Amino acid sequence: MVRWQPNARTRLEDAALELFAERGFEAVSAAEIAGLAGLTKATFFRHFRDKPEVLFWGQDLLADTFRQGIADGAAGAPPLELVRSAILSAAPIFDADRHRHAATRQRLIASSPSLNERAVLKRTALARAMTEALAARGVSTRTAEVAGLAGTTAFNAAYTQWATNPAFRGFTGLARRELDRTVRALAELTGPASDDVAPPSPHEPLEQN
Amino acid sequence: MVRWQPNARTRLEDAALELFAERGFEAVSAAEIAGLAGLTKATFFRHFRDKPEVLFWGQDLLADTFRQGIADGAAGAPPLELVRSAILSAAPIFDADRHRHAATRQRLIASSPSLNERAVLKRTALARAMTEALAARGVSTRTAEVAGLAGTTAFNAAYTQWATNPAFRGFTGLARRELDRTVRALAELTGPASDDVAPPSPHEPLEQN
Repeated sequence: MVRWQPNARTRLEDAALELFAERGFEAVSAAEIAGLAGLTKATFFRHFRDKPEVLFWGQDLLADTFRQGIADGAAGAPPLELVRSAILSAAPIFDADRHRHAATRQRLIASSPSLNERAVLKRTALARAMTEALAARGVSTRTAEVAGLAGTTAFNAAYTQWATNPAFRGFTGLARRELDRTVRALAELTGPASDDVAPPSPHEPLEQN
Repeated sequence: MVRWQPNARTRLEDAALELFAERGFEAVSAAEIAGLAGLTKATFFRHFRDKPEVLFWGQDLLADTFRQGIADGAAGAPPLELVRSAILSAAPIFDADRHRHAATRQRLIASSPSLNERAVLKRTALARAMTEALAARGVSTRTAEVAGLAGTTAFNAAYTQWATNPAFRGFTGLARRELDRTVRALAELTGPASDDVAPPSPHEPLEQN
């Protein structure tokens, strides 16, 4: 008889992180994780398509949140404003409960080439989610692509600081600072040294009377 | 007795693409590829660390070329100029010989989730190569990161057009056009709608005598 499992996902995640922290990612099986959580292996695979997904399912939630945040942005808002509000709209995901495992998760990913590859693929998917949502609002392809990638640099930096800091702190302040840094970096790239800031006038200087 | 194998890598690549095009990537083994090339499986694995690398080894060469191109750029050149010259410096790689297999390679990658994942990881490595080379020249971290990612959007677009066009054409023209598009996209992001283009003056207008 299948019965309803309250918070099965959270229990599986807690159990997984506890076992991974003790014995490393590779040495722990899905069945053991399910066992510690008081659930079956079948339940594990109903929640996560494979073992690494215990560490990465939050990224899919995040991609949906970014997509929705951009779709919901103010009419006429410029692309970087849409990216900013989408990233800030994800702040509630980064609560104290999620912070408990964040540093362990970062350490596990850093210690495994295959987990690191999955992390890179998931980050790429975050950028693509923003790019696609911007394009759906009529932002031109390359601009949407560059804005999605730029937003992801800000998000990644803010997330890493949030996750690796031993004490919990709010995500919003970190994200704002990193978004500002990215906007400054973009301005630096296209700034004073660029051709289109001060185009040479094709006209003679105006006569001064 | 091991004897010198002239152009072993090219022969293996030719054989691999021929077999993959006929029977698909999964159905072909490294031993079969080596057999068709008149070489041994051990020789195959001296040249490629695994079967997918037959399709991706060029990306490592490209990353080295980008790194070197940025390191060799003119002193004082702005980051986007360094990225531009690095990408254009890779043009000789995209010769008629490499073009022979390019469309087949693109089709194979598009047809396989695991090859597609490897392609994403390799593209990420290209961006990182540019970012690291810029940072090594003193460009600040976020600016180097955004410039590397932006350059990669231009490179990817130019490469896709070059690879998928049935007739061979020079890479340089495509790359220039896509680099210009990326620069315009960056300018659009930081352009008129941005706060820092026309800061309101804190001073009273000058008195006009």
